[in-house]
Amino acid sequence: MAVKTTIQEVGKYQDKEVTLSGWIYNKTNKGKLLFLMLRDGTGLIQAVMFRPEIGEELFDEFTALPQESAVQVTGKIVEDKRAKGGYEMQAKSVEVVHVAEEYPITPKEHGIEFLMDHRHLWLRSSKQHAIIRIRHQIIQSCRQFFDQNGFTLVDAPIFTPAACEGTTTLFETDYFDSKAYLTQSGQLYMEAAAMAFGKVYCFGPTFRAEKSKTRRHLTEFWMIEPEVAFCDLDQDMDLAEDMVAFVVQSVLENRHNELETLERDISKLEAIKKPFPRIKYDQAVELIKESNPDFLYGDDFGAPDETIISEHYDRPVMVTHYPAEVKAFYMKKDPNEPHKALCVDMLAPEGYGEIIGGGQREDDLNILLQKIKEHQLPKEAFRWYLDLRRYGSVPHAGFGLGIERTVSWLCGIHHVREAIPFPRTLLRLYP
Amino acid sequence: MAVKTTIQEVGKYQDKEVTLSGWIYNKTNKGKLLFLMLRDGTGLIQAVMFRPEIGEELFDEFTALPQESAVQVTGKIVEDKRAKGGYEMQAKSVEVVHVAEEYPITPKEHGIEFLMDHRHLWLRSSKQHAIIRIRHQIIQSCRQFFDQNGFTLVDAPIFTPAACEGTTTLFETDYFDSKAYLTQSGQLYMEAAAMAFGKVYCFGPTFRAEKSKTRRHLTEFWMIEPEVAFCDLDQDMDLAEDMVAFVVQSVLENRHNELETLERDISKLEAIKKPFPRIKYDQAVELIKESNPDFLYGDDFGAPDETIISEHYDRPVMVTHYPAEVKAFYMKKDPNEPHKALCVDMLAPEGYGEIIGGGQREDDLNILLQKIKEHQLPKEAFRWYLDLRRYGSVPHAGFGLGIERTVSWLCGIHHVREAIPFPRTLLRLYP
Repeated sequence: MAVKTTIQEVGKYQDKEVTLSGWIYNKTNKGKLLFLMLRDGTGLIQAVMFRPEIGEELFDEFTALPQESAVQVTGKIVEDKRAKGGYEMQAKSVEVVHVAEEYPITPKEHGIEFLMDHRHLWLRSSKQHAIIRIRHQIIQSCRQFFDQNGFTLVDAPIFTPAACEGTTTLFETDYFDSKAYLTQSGQLYMEAAAMAFGKVYCFGPTFRAEKSKTRRHLTEFWMIEPEVAFCDLDQDMDLAEDMVAFVVQSVLENRHNELETLERDISKLEAIKKPFPRIKYDQAVELIKESNPDFLYGDDFGAPDETIISEHYDRPVMVTHYPAEVKAFYMKKDPNEPHKALCVDMLAPEGYGEIIGGGQREDDLNILLQKIKEHQLPKEAFRWYLDLRRYGSVPHAGFGLGIERTVSWLCGIHHVREAIPFPRTLLRLYP
Repeated sequence: MAVKTTIQEVGKYQDKEVTLSGWIYNKTNKGKLLFLMLRDGTGLIQAVMFRPEIGEELFDEFTALPQESAVQVTGKIVEDKRAKGGYEMQAKSVEVVHVAEEYPITPKEHGIEFLMDHRHLWLRSSKQHAIIRIRHQIIQSCRQFFDQNGFTLVDAPIFTPAACEGTTTLFETDYFDSKAYLTQSGQLYMEAAAMAFGKVYCFGPTFRAEKSKTRRHLTEFWMIEPEVAFCDLDQDMDLAEDMVAFVVQSVLENRHNELETLERDISKLEAIKKPFPRIKYDQAVELIKESNPDFLYGDDFGAPDETIISEHYDRPVMVTHYPAEVKAFYMKKDPNEPHKALCVDMLAPEGYGEIIGGGQREDDLNILLQKIKEHQLPKEAFRWYLDLRRYGSVPHAGFGLGIERTVSWLCGIHHVREAIPFPRTLLRLYP
C-alpha cells in the first residue's frame, strides 16, 4: 500500500508512490489525459491521469467531477521543474470520496458581499490561504518574541465589570443578575499582572461596538498587549520596535511564497529595520499641515492624517507626546511638558494606519484619583486598579498591537475584513 | 554603574555588582543586619543589608517598610548553597521607589472570597505565581505541538449568530439591530477551516452561562480545538494522546520548580505515557456500577462517575461510544453500532474530570439535515455549516481541550478558579 502523505511533503517521495487526499481545485481534459489540480490544504499539485491506466469508467467519472469534489489519488511523484511546487503526480489509481454540488465560487468576479456570505468556502482560495497563513505566522512570532524575552502570559478576562473608556462602544450582556461588558483592552489587568510578574502579556479577542464602516474597523479583533514594570516611555518604544522588526523578519523568512501569492512588494517589507523614527505630536502636526492646512492643533489624528505622516517614512513611525486631553485617563503626563502625555502610537508605512497604541501609565495614586473624577468614571469599579498604586507602585509602560491591522499591512490588503478568518463588522455576523 | 538585571539572571553575575528592582516580599531584622527577601516577578532573592554600610537613615527606613513596598537594591551577588535560587546579594546601596500602605494579604489564613476579591494582589504570591507559570507553559506547549505538526491556526469568531447546543447556557448581546451569542466552541468553524487547510486549530476564550457553582465550572474559559480532514475517531484519539503526553512532558521538563512550590506529586505526572487506555461507554458503565449501583445506563457521566472511572487508571482514559442521544447533533454514529456515537471524552487521572471532548463529525448532508430537524435547531443559521457537506464532504474529526481543567490537573489544585488569572464564575465578575 502506498504511503499517505500531504502535498507539502511530496518532495520526500520522489519517484515513489504515495496517496494524497484532497479536493479538486481545477482540471483540464486533453483527450486521453486529464490534468487534475489537487489541493489538500498544504499546497497544490497536478495529478496526471491517463485514460487506459485509470480505466474508462473512473476516468469519465473524474472528468465530470465538479470543483471541490473530494478525492483520493495514488500515484508516482516525479520532479517537474515547471510546476510551482516542483513536482507532479502520475496517477495510478483514484477514488471519489464525495461528489460536490456545483461550486458557487467561480473564477469570474464576485462582489465582496457574496464572497463574505461564503466565507466558509472562500477560505479555500489561494489568496485567502496566503493571508491566513501569514496571520498564523504573525501570531506565532509575537508570542515567540515575548516568550523568549522573559514575559509571562497572563490572560486578561473578557467579561469586565466596568467601562474603561466610556460605554458608548461597549458590548453589554446580562451576567446573571448584573451587567457585564466585553473587554476593549486587557491593559488594566496587565498592569496588575506586571506588578506580580515584572514582564507580562495577554493575547485575546477584544471588542468595540463601533458604528464605523471604515476599512480599518472590526467589532471583534485580536490584540497582543505587553506590560512591563520599571519601564518608561523610551524603553516601551524600544520594546515595540524590537517586536515589530522581529515579526516582519519572521514573515519574510517563513512566508515568502504567501507574500508572492499576494503580489506583495517585498522590498517595502525588507526596509523595516530598526531604528524606527520617533517624532512628537507637534512635529507630526507640521507634517500634516503641509498637505492638510485645515488640521486643528490639539485634535487626534484621523486616518488620512496618519497616511500623510506615514508617507514621510519608509518604516513605521512612532508618534509621542499627544495633548493629554485626547488620551485616556491612565496616561502619565510628561513632567517636562505637563500638557503632553507620555504615550506612543506606531503608524505603519504605506498608509496602513495605527498598529500600536501605548505609553507609560500614571503611577501616582492621587493624580489617578483626580483623573477618574475628571473623567466621571465609576470609582468603585476601579478600586482594584487603584490598589496597584497603594502597594508598591512603580513606573510602568506597555502597548497593544492590533493583529488584523498588522496582517493587512504585511499582506498589503486594503481592508481588515480579509485579515481575520470570520470577520465581524457593523453589518456582518454570518457565517 | 552596576548593570540592571533580574533575579532569574543573577547567576550570570556571581561576585559582580548588579541592580535589582522589585518589591519587598519579606524581611527579618537582626540588629545591624536586615535580611530583605526581594521579589521581582522572575524569582526571589535575599539581600543582606549591613547598617554601617547602608547608612543609619536608609537602614531604618528599610526596616520600617511595609511588605510590597517597591525598592531598588544594588549589591554584590554571592553564591549561597542554602538559598533556593543558589545566590544572595550583599547590598551596597538601596533606594525606596514606593512606600506601600499596609498590605492586606498577610501570612495568616484568608477566606477564598477575600483572596478572590484581592486577586490583583493575590497573583503576587508564590503559589499563584507557580500556577500561572505552569498555565503559560501548557498554552505554549499546546500551540507548539500543533504548529510543529502542520496545523494552521484559524481563529474562530466569538460572536456567533446561532446557538449550537441550545440557548439556555448562552450569553447574549445586542448586536446593533440583532442578537449575537458568545461562542461556546469554535468547532463548527474549525470544520469549515479543516476543509480549507486540512489540519487546523483555534485557541480562544469560550463562554457558558452555567448556573453551576461546582469546582469545575467557569463562565469564561479557554479551549484549544484542533480539527482534521480525512481523520477518523481512532486517528483523533491518537492526536489527543500525543498532544496530552507532549504537554505533560514539557511541564515536567520546564516547570519543575513550580511543581515543587505547589507540592505536586510529580511521580503521578511522570506516569502519563502513551498509550492511554481506550474503553467504550459500556465498559465505563460497568466500572461505575461497582461503586454506584444506581447509575442509569444511558445517562451521561456526572463528576463523581468520572472520578470512579479515572481511579482505575494511572493515566488519562479515553471513553468512546456514548449513546448517541446524550451527544450533540453533529456527532457521527458508528455504522457498526448505530445507537452509539463516534465520540471520545478524555478523563484526567486522580479525579480531575473531563479535559477533552471530541469525536468524528457527521459528514452526510441528509443525516445532518434530519438531525437538525430532530434537535429543532434553526436551519437557516446552519446554512453555511451544511454547505460543508455539499462541497467535498470528507470524514473529519477533532476535539477541544479545556485549559483550566488541564491546569488544575497538572498543578494538583482542587478548584479551576485558581487556574485562570482573573476567574469569572456565577458569583464573580470582579476584579
